[in-house]
Amino acid sequence: MSNNKEKPIGIFDSGVGGLTIALEIMRKLPNENIVYFGDTARVPYGTKSKETIIHYSRQIVKFLKEKNVKAIVVACNTASAFALDTIEKELDIPIIGVVKPGAKASTQITESKKVGVIGTEGTIKSKIYSEYIKTLDPEIEVIGRACPLFVPLVEEGWTHDMITEEVAERYLEEMKASGVDSLILGCTHYPLLRTLLKKVLGDSITLVNPAYETALSLDELLRENDIASDGDKGTFDIYVSDDPEKFKKFAKKSMKEYADRVDEVTQINIEEY
Amino acid sequence: MSNNKEKPIGIFDSGVGGLTIALEIMRKLPNENIVYFGDTARVPYGTKSKETIIHYSRQIVKFLKEKNVKAIVVACNTASAFALDTIEKELDIPIIGVVKPGAKASTQITESKKVGVIGTEGTIKSKIYSEYIKTLDPEIEVIGRACPLFVPLVEEGWTHDMITEEVAERYLEEMKASGVDSLILGCTHYPLLRTLLKKVLGDSITLVNPAYETALSLDELLRENDIASDGDKGTFDIYVSDDPEKFKKFAKKSMKEYADRVDEVTQINIEEY
Repeated sequence: MSNNKEKPIGIFDSGVGGLTIALEIMRKLPNENIVYFGDTARVPYGTKSKETIIHYSRQIVKFLKEKNVKAIVVACNTASAFALDTIEKELDIPIIGVVKPGAKASTQITESKKVGVIGTEGTIKSKIYSEYIKTLDPEIEVIGRACPLFVPLVEEGWTHDMITEEVAERYLEEMKASGVDSLILGCTHYPLLRTLLKKVLGDSITLVNPAYETALSLDELLRENDIASDGDKGTFDIYVSDDPEKFKKFAKKSMKEYADRVDEVTQINIEEY
Repeated sequence: MSNNKEKPIGIFDSGVGGLTIALEIMRKLPNENIVYFGDTARVPYGTKSKETIIHYSRQIVKFLKEKNVKAIVVACNTASAFALDTIEKELDIPIIGVVKPGAKASTQITESKKVGVIGTEGTIKSKIYSEYIKTLDPEIEVIGRACPLFVPLVEEGWTHDMITEEVAERYLEEMKASGVDSLILGCTHYPLLRTLLKKVLGDSITLVNPAYETALSLDELLRENDIASDGDKGTFDIYVSDDPEKFKKFAKKSMKEYADRVDEVTQINIEEY
Protein backbone atom coordinates (compact mmCIF):
# COMPACT_ATOMS: atom_id res chain seq x y z
CA MET A 1 0.00 0.00 0.00
CA SER A 2 2.97 2.32 0.41
CA ASN A 3 2.73 3.69 -3.15
CA ASN A 4 -0.73 4.94 -2.20
CA LYS A 5 0.59 7.31 0.45
CA GLU A 6 1.46 10.16 -1.88
CA LYS A 7 -1.82 10.03 -3.77
CA PRO A 8 -4.05 13.01 -3.07
CA ILE A 9 -7.17 13.23 -0.93
CA GLY A 10 -10.27 14.26 -2.88
CA ILE A 11 -12.59 16.80 -1.26
CA PHE A 12 -15.83 17.95 -2.83
CA ASP A 13 -18.58 20.41 -2.11
CA SER A 14 -21.38 22.19 -3.94
CA GLY A 15 -19.25 25.32 -4.03
CA VAL A 16 -16.95 27.36 -1.82
CA GLY A 17 -18.29 26.15 1.53
CA GLY A 18 -16.09 23.06 1.62
CA LEU A 19 -12.99 25.24 1.72
CA THR A 20 -13.57 25.51 5.48
CA ILE A 21 -13.14 21.71 5.59
CA ALA A 22 -10.07 21.84 3.33
CA LEU A 23 -8.53 24.44 5.66
CA GLU A 24 -9.03 22.29 8.77
CA ILE A 25 -7.59 19.28 6.92
CA MET A 26 -4.48 21.27 5.95
CA ARG A 27 -4.04 22.42 9.54
CA LYS A 28 -4.30 18.88 10.85
CA LEU A 29 -2.56 17.13 7.93
CA PRO A 30 -0.22 19.67 6.30
CA ASN A 31 1.66 17.04 4.28
CA GLU A 32 -1.33 15.65 2.44
CA ASN A 33 -1.88 16.48 -1.22
CA ILE A 34 -5.44 17.66 -1.86
CA VAL A 35 -7.66 17.78 -4.94
CA TYR A 36 -10.72 19.95 -4.34
CA PHE A 37 -13.83 20.08 -6.53
CA GLY A 38 -16.50 22.79 -6.12
CA ASP A 39 -19.67 22.31 -8.17
CA THR A 40 -20.22 26.03 -8.72
CA ALA A 41 -22.24 25.56 -11.93
CA ARG A 42 -24.94 23.65 -10.03
CA VAL A 43 -24.71 25.14 -6.53
CA PRO A 44 -26.66 25.06 -4.19
CA TYR A 45 -27.41 21.44 -3.29
CA GLY A 46 -29.52 22.18 -0.19
CA THR A 47 -32.81 22.72 -2.02
CA LYS A 48 -32.49 19.87 -4.52
CA SER A 49 -33.77 16.29 -4.43
CA LYS A 50 -31.95 13.23 -3.12
CA GLU A 51 -31.85 11.63 -6.60
CA THR A 52 -30.28 14.71 -8.15
CA ILE A 53 -27.66 14.99 -5.40
CA ILE A 54 -26.74 11.29 -5.79
CA HIS A 55 -26.37 11.81 -9.55
CA TYR A 56 -24.13 14.86 -9.04
CA SER A 57 -22.05 13.13 -6.37
CA ARG A 58 -21.50 10.09 -8.62
CA GLN A 59 -20.18 12.34 -11.40
CA ILE A 60 -17.82 14.12 -9.02
CA VAL A 61 -16.53 10.88 -7.52
CA LYS A 62 -15.83 9.62 -11.04
CA PHE A 63 -13.85 12.80 -11.72
CA LEU A 64 -11.90 12.51 -8.46
CA LYS A 65 -11.11 8.85 -9.16
CA GLU A 66 -9.60 9.96 -12.48
CA LYS A 67 -7.38 12.27 -10.42
CA ASN A 68 -6.19 9.13 -8.67
CA VAL A 69 -7.29 10.05 -5.14
CA LYS A 70 -6.67 7.64 -2.24
CA ALA A 71 -9.66 8.75 -0.16
CA ILE A 72 -12.63 11.12 -0.50
CA VAL A 73 -14.10 13.67 1.89
CA VAL A 74 -17.68 14.75 1.16
CA ALA A 75 -17.40 18.29 2.51
CA CYS A 76 -21.02 19.16 1.80
CA ASN A 77 -23.63 18.36 4.45
CA THR A 78 -26.42 17.84 1.92
CA ALA A 79 -24.34 15.44 -0.18
CA SER A 80 -23.20 13.65 3.01
CA ALA A 81 -26.86 13.30 4.01
CA PHE A 82 -28.24 12.19 0.64
CA ALA A 83 -25.45 10.44 -1.24
CA LEU A 84 -22.73 9.12 1.08
CA ASP A 85 -24.34 5.73 1.87
CA THR A 86 -25.00 5.02 -1.81
CA ILE A 87 -21.58 6.13 -3.03
CA GLU A 88 -19.75 4.26 -0.28
CA LYS A 89 -21.16 0.94 -1.54
CA GLU A 90 -19.98 1.66 -5.07
CA LEU A 91 -16.46 2.72 -4.14
CA ASP A 92 -13.17 0.86 -3.61
CA ILE A 93 -11.44 3.62 -1.62
CA PRO A 94 -12.35 5.06 1.81
CA ILE A 95 -14.87 7.90 1.90
CA ILE A 96 -16.11 10.03 4.80
CA GLY A 97 -18.65 12.80 5.13
CA VAL A 98 -19.04 15.68 7.56
CA VAL A 99 -22.20 14.43 9.26
CA LYS A 100 -20.88 11.61 11.42
CA PRO A 101 -17.87 13.49 12.84
CA GLY A 102 -20.05 16.48 13.79
CA ALA A 103 -22.80 14.30 15.20
CA LYS A 104 -20.35 12.32 17.31
CA ALA A 105 -18.79 15.47 18.79
CA SER A 106 -22.20 16.79 19.81
CA THR A 107 -22.97 13.61 21.76
CA GLN A 108 -19.76 14.07 23.71
CA ILE A 109 -20.67 17.65 24.62
CA THR A 110 -24.35 17.49 25.54
CA GLU A 111 -25.35 17.14 29.19
CA SER A 112 -29.00 18.03 28.72
CA LYS A 113 -29.30 15.18 26.18
CA LYS A 114 -30.75 17.68 23.77
CA VAL A 115 -28.78 18.49 20.63
CA GLY A 116 -29.70 21.06 18.00
CA VAL A 117 -28.86 20.92 14.29
CA ILE A 118 -29.17 23.72 11.76
CA GLY A 119 -28.66 23.18 8.03
CA THR A 120 -30.18 23.36 4.57
CA GLU A 121 -33.70 22.19 3.85
CA GLY A 122 -32.27 18.95 2.38
CA THR A 123 -30.04 18.15 5.34
CA ILE A 124 -32.74 18.82 7.94
CA LYS A 125 -35.49 16.95 6.05
CA SER A 126 -33.20 13.93 5.66
CA LYS A 127 -33.10 13.60 9.48
CA ILE A 128 -29.62 12.10 9.06
CA TYR A 129 -28.11 13.83 12.10
CA SER A 130 -30.97 12.67 14.26
CA GLU A 131 -30.74 9.08 13.02
CA TYR A 132 -27.00 8.84 13.50
CA ILE A 133 -27.00 10.50 16.93
CA LYS A 134 -29.65 8.02 18.09
CA THR A 135 -27.40 5.09 17.13
CA LEU A 136 -24.74 6.59 19.42
CA ASP A 137 -27.09 7.44 22.28
CA PRO A 138 -30.80 6.68 21.92
CA GLU A 139 -31.63 8.96 24.85
CA ILE A 140 -30.54 12.10 23.03
CA GLU A 141 -33.29 14.22 21.56
CA VAL A 142 -32.34 16.03 18.34
CA ILE A 143 -34.02 19.29 17.34
CA GLY A 144 -33.47 20.34 13.71
CA ARG A 145 -34.16 23.64 11.97
CA ALA A 146 -33.61 24.51 8.32
CA CYS A 147 -32.12 28.01 7.87
CA PRO A 148 -32.32 28.60 4.10
CA LEU A 149 -31.43 32.31 4.27
CA PHE A 150 -28.12 31.82 6.07
CA VAL A 151 -26.19 30.81 2.93
CA PRO A 152 -27.34 33.79 0.82
CA LEU A 153 -26.75 36.11 3.80
CA VAL A 154 -23.17 34.81 4.15
CA GLU A 155 -22.64 35.12 0.39
CA GLU A 156 -23.91 38.71 0.60
CA GLY A 157 -21.16 39.26 3.17
CA TRP A 158 -23.62 40.22 5.94
CA THR A 159 -22.00 38.02 8.57
CA HIS A 160 -21.99 40.71 11.26
CA ASP A 161 -25.21 42.50 10.53
CA MET A 162 -28.45 43.52 12.23
CA ILE A 163 -30.61 41.97 9.51
CA THR A 164 -28.81 38.62 9.77
CA GLU A 165 -29.22 38.81 13.54
CA GLU A 166 -32.98 39.29 13.15
CA VAL A 167 -33.17 36.34 10.75
CA ALA A 168 -31.20 34.22 13.24
CA GLU A 169 -33.48 35.33 16.11
CA ARG A 170 -36.50 34.18 14.13
CA TYR A 171 -35.01 30.88 12.99
CA LEU A 172 -33.64 29.98 16.41
CA GLU A 173 -36.38 31.18 18.74
CA GLU A 174 -37.75 27.68 19.33
CA MET A 175 -34.25 26.20 19.41
CA LYS A 176 -33.30 28.52 22.29
CA ALA A 177 -36.44 27.58 24.21
CA SER A 178 -35.97 23.85 23.62
CA GLY A 179 -33.17 23.26 26.14
CA VAL A 180 -30.44 22.17 23.71
CA ASP A 181 -26.94 22.72 25.05
CA SER A 182 -25.02 21.97 21.85
CA LEU A 183 -25.78 23.05 18.31
CA ILE A 184 -24.26 21.45 15.21
CA LEU A 185 -23.47 23.92 12.42
CA GLY A 186 -24.71 21.51 9.76
CA CYS A 187 -23.72 23.54 6.69
CA THR A 188 -20.23 24.57 5.68
CA HIS A 189 -21.20 28.24 5.39
CA TYR A 190 -22.43 28.54 8.95
CA PRO A 191 -19.08 28.74 10.80
CA LEU A 192 -18.78 32.21 9.24
CA LEU A 193 -21.81 33.20 11.36
CA ARG A 194 -20.24 31.85 14.56
CA THR A 195 -19.88 35.21 16.33
CA LEU A 196 -23.40 36.28 15.46
CA LEU A 197 -24.90 32.93 16.45
CA LYS A 198 -23.11 33.03 19.80
CA LYS A 199 -24.63 36.45 20.43
CA VAL A 200 -28.13 35.24 19.54
CA LEU A 201 -27.90 31.93 21.40
CA GLY A 202 -25.98 33.00 24.51
CA ASP A 203 -23.29 31.14 26.43
CA SER A 204 -25.32 28.09 27.42
CA ILE A 205 -25.23 26.56 23.93
CA THR A 206 -21.93 25.19 22.56
CA LEU A 207 -21.50 25.44 18.80
CA VAL A 208 -20.11 22.35 17.05
CA ASN A 209 -18.20 22.96 13.80
CA PRO A 210 -17.95 19.63 11.94
CA ALA A 211 -14.93 20.86 9.95
CA TYR A 212 -12.53 20.29 12.83
CA GLU A 213 -14.05 16.93 13.72
CA THR A 214 -13.92 15.82 10.08
CA ALA A 215 -10.19 16.55 9.91
CA LEU A 216 -9.67 14.38 13.01
CA SER A 217 -11.72 11.55 11.48
CA LEU A 218 -9.78 11.75 8.25
CA ASP A 219 -6.50 11.52 10.14
CA GLU A 220 -7.75 8.36 11.84
CA LEU A 221 -9.01 6.89 8.56
CA LEU A 222 -5.66 7.44 6.80
CA ARG A 223 -3.74 5.83 9.66
CA GLU A 224 -6.08 2.85 9.87
CA ASN A 225 -5.67 2.24 6.16
CA ASP A 226 -1.94 2.93 6.29
CA ILE A 227 -2.20 5.55 3.57
CA ALA A 228 -1.15 8.71 5.46
CA SER A 229 1.35 10.78 3.53
CA ASP A 230 4.94 10.78 4.76
CA GLY A 231 5.98 13.37 2.20
CA ASP A 232 6.71 17.07 2.43
CA LYS A 233 4.37 20.05 2.31
CA GLY A 234 1.21 19.04 0.43
CA THR A 235 -0.17 20.39 -2.84
CA PHE A 236 -3.63 21.86 -3.38
CA ASP A 237 -5.33 21.51 -6.79
CA ILE A 238 -8.69 23.16 -7.26
CA TYR A 239 -11.30 22.30 -9.90
CA VAL A 240 -14.69 23.95 -10.37
CA SER A 241 -17.62 23.64 -12.80
CA ASP A 242 -18.15 27.41 -13.28
CA ASP A 243 -16.00 30.56 -13.49
CA PRO A 244 -12.54 29.81 -11.98
CA GLU A 245 -11.52 33.44 -11.35
CA LYS A 246 -14.38 34.24 -8.98
CA PHE A 247 -13.65 31.04 -7.07
CA LYS A 248 -9.96 31.77 -6.85
CA LYS A 249 -10.58 35.16 -5.26
CA PHE A 250 -12.87 33.65 -2.66
CA ALA A 251 -10.46 30.77 -1.99
CA LYS A 252 -7.50 33.10 -1.48
CA LYS A 253 -9.45 34.81 1.30
CA SER A 254 -10.93 31.66 2.84
CA MET A 255 -7.74 29.61 3.07
CA LYS A 256 -6.13 32.07 5.53
CA GLU A 257 -2.60 30.94 6.41
CA TYR A 258 -2.71 28.51 3.45
CA ALA A 259 -3.69 31.18 0.89
CA ASP A 260 -0.35 30.66 -0.86
CA ARG A 261 -1.38 27.11 -1.75
CA VAL A 262 -4.23 28.54 -3.86
CA ASP A 263 -2.67 28.75 -7.27
CA GLU A 264 -4.46 27.75 -10.42
CA VAL A 265 -8.19 27.01 -10.38
CA THR A 266 -9.30 24.88 -13.35
CA GLN A 267 -12.78 24.72 -14.83
CA ILE A 268 -14.09 21.34 -16.02
CA ASN A 269 -17.36 20.17 -17.58
CA ILE A 270 -18.71 17.90 -14.83
CA GLU A 271 -21.66 16.82 -17.00
CA GLU A 272 -19.25 14.72 -19.04
CA TYR A 273 -18.62 12.41 -16.10
CA MET B 1 -47.01 28.02 -42.46
CA SER B 2 -50.55 27.13 -41.37
CA ASN B 3 -49.51 23.72 -40.03
CA ASN B 4 -47.24 25.57 -37.62
CA LYS B 5 -50.10 27.32 -35.86
CA GLU B 6 -50.98 24.50 -33.51
CA LYS B 7 -47.41 23.80 -32.50
CA PRO B 8 -46.66 24.81 -28.91
CA ILE B 9 -44.73 27.81 -27.61
CA GLY B 10 -41.65 26.86 -25.58
CA ILE B 11 -41.01 28.81 -22.37
CA PHE B 12 -37.98 28.25 -20.18
CA ASP B 13 -36.63 29.53 -16.89
CA SER B 14 -34.09 28.50 -14.26
CA GLY B 15 -36.97 27.32 -12.07
CA VAL B 16 -40.42 28.41 -10.96
CA GLY B 17 -40.02 32.13 -11.61
CA GLY B 18 -40.96 31.88 -15.27
CA LEU B 19 -44.43 30.70 -14.32
CA THR B 20 -45.32 34.38 -13.85
CA ILE B 21 -44.50 34.81 -17.56
CA ALA B 22 -46.46 31.68 -18.51
CA LEU B 23 -49.47 33.04 -16.61
CA GLU B 24 -49.41 36.37 -18.44
CA ILE B 25 -49.06 34.55 -21.78
CA MET B 26 -52.08 32.38 -21.00
CA ARG B 27 -54.11 35.45 -20.05
CA LYS B 28 -53.19 37.21 -23.29
CA LEU B 29 -53.14 34.12 -25.54
CA PRO B 30 -55.46 31.53 -23.98
CA ASN B 31 -55.56 29.36 -27.10
CA GLU B 32 -51.82 28.77 -27.37
CA ASN B 33 -50.33 25.42 -26.42
CA ILE B 34 -47.37 25.81 -24.07
CA VAL B 35 -44.37 23.62 -23.20
CA TYR B 36 -42.59 24.92 -20.09
CA PHE B 37 -39.14 23.87 -18.89
CA GLY B 38 -37.84 24.78 -15.41
CA ASP B 39 -34.16 23.96 -14.75
CA THR B 40 -34.70 23.17 -11.08
CA ALA B 41 -31.65 20.89 -10.83
CA ARG B 42 -29.31 23.77 -11.65
CA VAL B 43 -31.23 26.79 -10.32
CA PRO B 44 -30.31 29.63 -9.71
CA TYR B 45 -28.78 31.17 -12.86
CA GLY B 46 -28.26 34.68 -11.43
CA THR B 47 -24.90 33.97 -9.77
CA LYS B 48 -23.38 31.86 -12.57
CA SER B 49 -21.12 32.82 -15.47
CA LYS B 50 -22.18 33.83 -18.97
CA GLU B 51 -20.54 30.74 -20.52
CA THR B 52 -22.38 28.38 -18.17
CA ILE B 53 -25.74 30.08 -18.83
CA ILE B 54 -25.20 29.87 -22.60
CA HIS B 55 -24.37 26.15 -22.27
CA TYR B 56 -27.51 25.52 -20.19
CA SER B 57 -29.71 27.57 -22.53
CA ARG B 58 -28.44 25.65 -25.58
CA GLN B 59 -29.34 22.35 -23.93
CA ILE B 60 -32.83 23.59 -23.09
CA VAL B 61 -33.43 24.98 -26.58
CA LYS B 62 -32.42 21.59 -28.01
CA PHE B 63 -34.95 19.92 -25.71
CA LEU B 64 -37.71 22.38 -26.67
CA LYS B 65 -36.98 21.91 -30.37
CA GLU B 66 -37.50 18.19 -29.88
CA LYS B 67 -40.91 19.11 -28.48
CA ASN B 68 -41.55 20.75 -31.83
CA VAL B 69 -42.12 24.31 -30.56
CA LYS B 70 -42.88 27.11 -33.04
CA ALA B 71 -41.34 29.90 -30.94
CA ILE B 72 -39.38 30.25 -27.68
CA VAL B 73 -39.74 32.66 -24.77
CA VAL B 74 -36.70 33.00 -22.50
CA ALA B 75 -38.57 33.73 -19.28
CA CYS B 76 -35.42 34.15 -17.19
CA ASN B 77 -33.79 37.57 -17.03
CA THR B 78 -30.29 36.18 -16.56
CA ALA B 79 -30.61 33.83 -19.55
CA SER B 80 -32.13 36.68 -21.59
CA ALA B 81 -29.16 38.85 -20.65
CA PHE B 82 -26.42 36.28 -21.22
CA ALA B 83 -27.64 33.81 -23.84
CA LEU B 84 -30.41 35.28 -26.01
CA ASP B 85 -28.18 36.95 -28.63
CA THR B 86 -26.07 33.82 -29.08
CA ILE B 87 -29.01 31.42 -29.24
CA GLU B 88 -30.96 33.63 -31.64
CA LYS B 89 -28.22 33.33 -34.24
CA GLU B 90 -28.25 29.54 -34.00
CA LEU B 91 -32.01 29.13 -34.21
CA ASP B 92 -34.47 28.81 -37.12
CA ILE B 93 -37.59 29.77 -35.13
CA PRO B 94 -38.45 33.10 -33.44
CA ILE B 95 -37.20 33.64 -29.88
CA ILE B 96 -37.81 36.49 -27.45
CA GLY B 97 -36.60 37.28 -23.96
CA VAL B 98 -38.04 39.33 -21.12
CA VAL B 99 -35.46 42.12 -21.20
CA LYS B 100 -36.46 44.07 -24.31
CA PRO B 101 -40.22 44.20 -23.59
CA GLY B 102 -39.60 45.39 -20.02
CA ALA B 103 -36.95 47.89 -21.10
CA LYS B 104 -39.21 49.31 -23.80
CA ALA B 105 -42.12 49.79 -21.40
CA SER B 106 -39.91 51.69 -18.97
CA THR B 107 -38.86 54.17 -21.66
CA GLN B 108 -42.53 54.91 -22.34
CA ILE B 109 -43.21 55.60 -18.66
CA THR B 110 -40.24 57.66 -17.54
CA GLU B 111 -40.54 61.45 -17.50
CA SER B 112 -37.46 62.12 -15.37
CA LYS B 113 -35.38 60.19 -17.96
CA LYS B 114 -34.07 58.10 -15.12
CA VAL B 115 -34.97 54.40 -15.06
CA GLY B 116 -34.09 51.91 -12.34
CA VAL B 117 -33.48 48.17 -12.78
CA ILE B 118 -33.23 45.56 -10.07
CA GLY B 119 -32.21 41.96 -10.76
CA THR B 120 -29.72 39.19 -10.06
CA GLU B 121 -25.99 39.80 -9.95
CA GLY B 122 -25.68 38.38 -13.49
CA THR B 123 -28.42 40.52 -15.00
CA ILE B 124 -27.17 43.76 -13.44
CA LYS B 125 -23.49 43.11 -14.22
CA SER B 126 -24.37 42.38 -17.85
CA LYS B 127 -25.69 45.98 -18.19
CA ILE B 128 -28.10 44.63 -20.81
CA TYR B 129 -31.06 46.77 -19.69
CA SER B 130 -28.93 49.87 -19.77
CA GLU B 131 -27.53 49.10 -23.24
CA TYR B 132 -30.90 48.34 -24.75
CA ILE B 133 -32.64 51.35 -23.19
CA LYS B 134 -29.91 53.61 -24.58
CA THR B 135 -30.61 52.33 -28.12
CA LEU B 136 -34.22 53.42 -27.62
CA ASP B 137 -33.43 56.77 -26.01
CA PRO B 138 -29.80 57.74 -25.42
CA GLU B 139 -30.83 60.47 -22.98
CA ILE B 140 -32.18 58.03 -20.42
CA GLU B 141 -29.94 57.26 -17.48
CA VAL B 142 -30.23 53.72 -16.13
CA ILE B 143 -29.49 52.92 -12.49
CA GLY B 144 -29.02 49.22 -11.73
CA ARG B 145 -28.90 47.39 -8.39
CA ALA B 146 -28.39 43.67 -7.77
CA CYS B 147 -30.67 42.34 -5.03
CA PRO B 148 -29.38 38.79 -4.42
CA LEU B 149 -31.43 38.22 -1.25
CA PHE B 150 -34.81 38.88 -2.86
CA VAL B 151 -35.08 35.43 -4.49
CA PRO B 152 -34.31 33.46 -1.31
CA LEU B 153 -36.62 35.76 0.68
CA VAL B 154 -39.46 35.11 -1.78
CA GLU B 155 -38.71 31.38 -1.69
CA GLU B 156 -38.83 31.52 2.11
CA GLY B 157 -42.35 32.97 1.70
CA TRP B 158 -41.45 36.24 3.46
CA THR B 159 -43.08 38.44 0.82
CA HIS B 160 -44.91 40.64 3.36
CA ASP B 161 -42.39 40.76 6.16
CA MET B 162 -40.49 43.28 8.26
CA ILE B 163 -37.13 41.64 7.53
CA THR B 164 -37.70 41.72 3.78
CA GLU B 165 -38.72 45.36 4.12
CA GLU B 166 -35.45 46.16 5.88
CA VAL B 167 -33.48 44.36 3.18
CA ALA B 168 -35.38 46.30 0.50
CA GLU B 169 -34.75 49.60 2.34
CA ARG B 170 -31.04 48.87 2.32
CA TYR B 171 -30.86 47.71 -1.32
CA LEU B 172 -32.98 50.58 -2.61
CA GLU B 173 -31.78 53.53 -0.52
CA GLU B 174 -29.64 54.97 -3.32
CA MET B 175 -32.26 54.09 -5.94
CA LYS B 176 -34.84 56.17 -4.08
CA ALA B 177 -32.46 59.11 -3.85
CA SER B 178 -31.45 58.88 -7.53
CA GLY B 179 -34.60 60.39 -9.03
CA VAL B 180 -35.78 57.36 -11.03
CA ASP B 181 -39.51 57.40 -11.73
CA SER B 182 -39.84 53.87 -13.12
CA LEU B 183 -38.29 50.67 -11.85
CA ILE B 184 -38.02 47.47 -13.88
CA LEU B 185 -38.54 44.29 -11.86
CA GLY B 186 -35.73 42.50 -13.69
CA CYS B 187 -36.18 39.06 -12.15
CA THR B 188 -39.25 36.84 -12.40
CA HIS B 189 -39.48 36.42 -8.62
CA TYR B 190 -39.75 40.13 -7.91
CA PRO B 191 -43.40 40.74 -8.88
CA LEU B 192 -44.24 38.76 -5.74
CA LEU B 193 -42.64 41.61 -3.75
CA ARG B 194 -44.70 44.26 -5.57
CA THR B 195 -46.73 45.38 -2.52
CA LEU B 196 -43.69 45.58 -0.29
CA LEU B 197 -41.62 47.41 -2.90
CA LYS B 198 -44.40 49.95 -3.42
CA LYS B 199 -44.40 50.61 0.32
CA VAL B 200 -40.63 51.06 0.41
CA LEU B 201 -40.40 53.17 -2.77
CA GLY B 202 -43.52 55.32 -2.42
CA ASP B 203 -45.95 56.46 -5.11
CA SER B 204 -43.52 58.42 -7.24
CA ILE B 205 -41.87 55.31 -8.74
CA THR B 206 -43.86 53.12 -11.17
CA LEU B 207 -43.00 49.42 -11.10
CA VAL B 208 -42.61 47.72 -14.48
CA ASN B 209 -43.34 43.98 -14.59
CA PRO B 210 -41.80 42.57 -17.80
CA ALA B 211 -44.17 39.58 -17.71
CA TYR B 212 -47.11 41.55 -19.05
CA GLU B 213 -44.98 43.31 -21.67
CA THR B 214 -43.48 40.01 -22.78
CA ALA B 215 -46.93 38.54 -23.40
CA LEU B 216 -47.76 41.54 -25.59
CA SER B 217 -44.51 41.15 -27.54
CA LEU B 218 -45.13 37.45 -28.04
CA ASP B 219 -48.60 38.18 -29.39
CA GLU B 220 -47.08 40.59 -31.92
CA LEU B 221 -44.35 38.10 -32.86
CA LEU B 222 -46.84 35.30 -33.53
CA ARG B 223 -49.02 37.55 -35.70
CA GLU B 224 -46.06 38.88 -37.67
CA ASN B 225 -44.94 35.34 -38.41
CA ASP B 226 -48.49 34.17 -39.07
CA ILE B 227 -48.17 31.37 -36.54
CA ALA B 228 -50.76 32.40 -33.92
CA SER B 229 -52.97 29.51 -32.86
CA ASP B 230 -56.54 29.52 -34.11
CA GLY B 231 -57.44 26.44 -32.09
CA ASP B 232 -59.35 25.98 -28.85
CA LYS B 233 -58.21 26.23 -25.24
CA GLY B 234 -54.47 25.64 -25.10
CA THR B 235 -52.56 22.85 -23.36
CA PHE B 236 -49.78 23.28 -20.78
CA ASP B 237 -47.00 20.68 -20.51
CA ILE B 238 -44.42 21.14 -17.80
CA TYR B 239 -40.91 19.61 -17.70
CA VAL B 240 -38.31 20.06 -14.97
CA SER B 241 -34.79 18.79 -14.25
CA ASP B 242 -35.39 18.05 -10.53
CA ASP B 243 -38.24 16.75 -8.33
CA PRO B 244 -41.54 17.15 -10.24
CA GLU B 245 -43.86 16.95 -7.21
CA LYS B 246 -42.42 20.00 -5.43
CA PHE B 247 -42.68 21.96 -8.68
CA LYS B 248 -46.26 20.86 -9.29
CA LYS B 249 -47.36 22.14 -5.89
CA PHE B 250 -45.76 25.51 -6.50
CA ALA B 251 -47.18 25.72 -10.05
CA LYS B 252 -50.72 24.94 -8.88
CA LYS B 253 -50.51 27.96 -6.59
CA SER B 254 -48.74 30.29 -9.02
CA MET B 255 -50.95 29.70 -12.05
CA LYS B 256 -54.03 31.19 -10.29
CA GLU B 257 -57.08 30.99 -12.58
CA TYR B 258 -55.16 28.56 -14.84
CA ALA B 259 -54.27 26.15 -12.01
CA ASP B 260 -56.44 23.49 -13.67
CA ARG B 261 -54.05 23.43 -16.62
CA VAL B 262 -51.27 22.21 -14.32
CA ASP B 263 -51.54 18.46 -14.66
CA GLU B 264 -48.53 16.23 -14.98
CA VAL B 265 -45.02 17.57 -14.37
CA THR B 266 -42.32 15.40 -16.00
CA GLN B 267 -38.69 15.16 -14.93
CA ILE B 268 -36.03 14.92 -17.64
CA ASN B 269 -32.23 14.67 -17.61
CA ILE B 270 -31.26 17.96 -19.24
CA GLU B 271 -27.55 17.02 -19.22
CA GLU B 272 -28.29 14.59 -22.06
CA TYR B 273 -29.12 17.44 -24.42
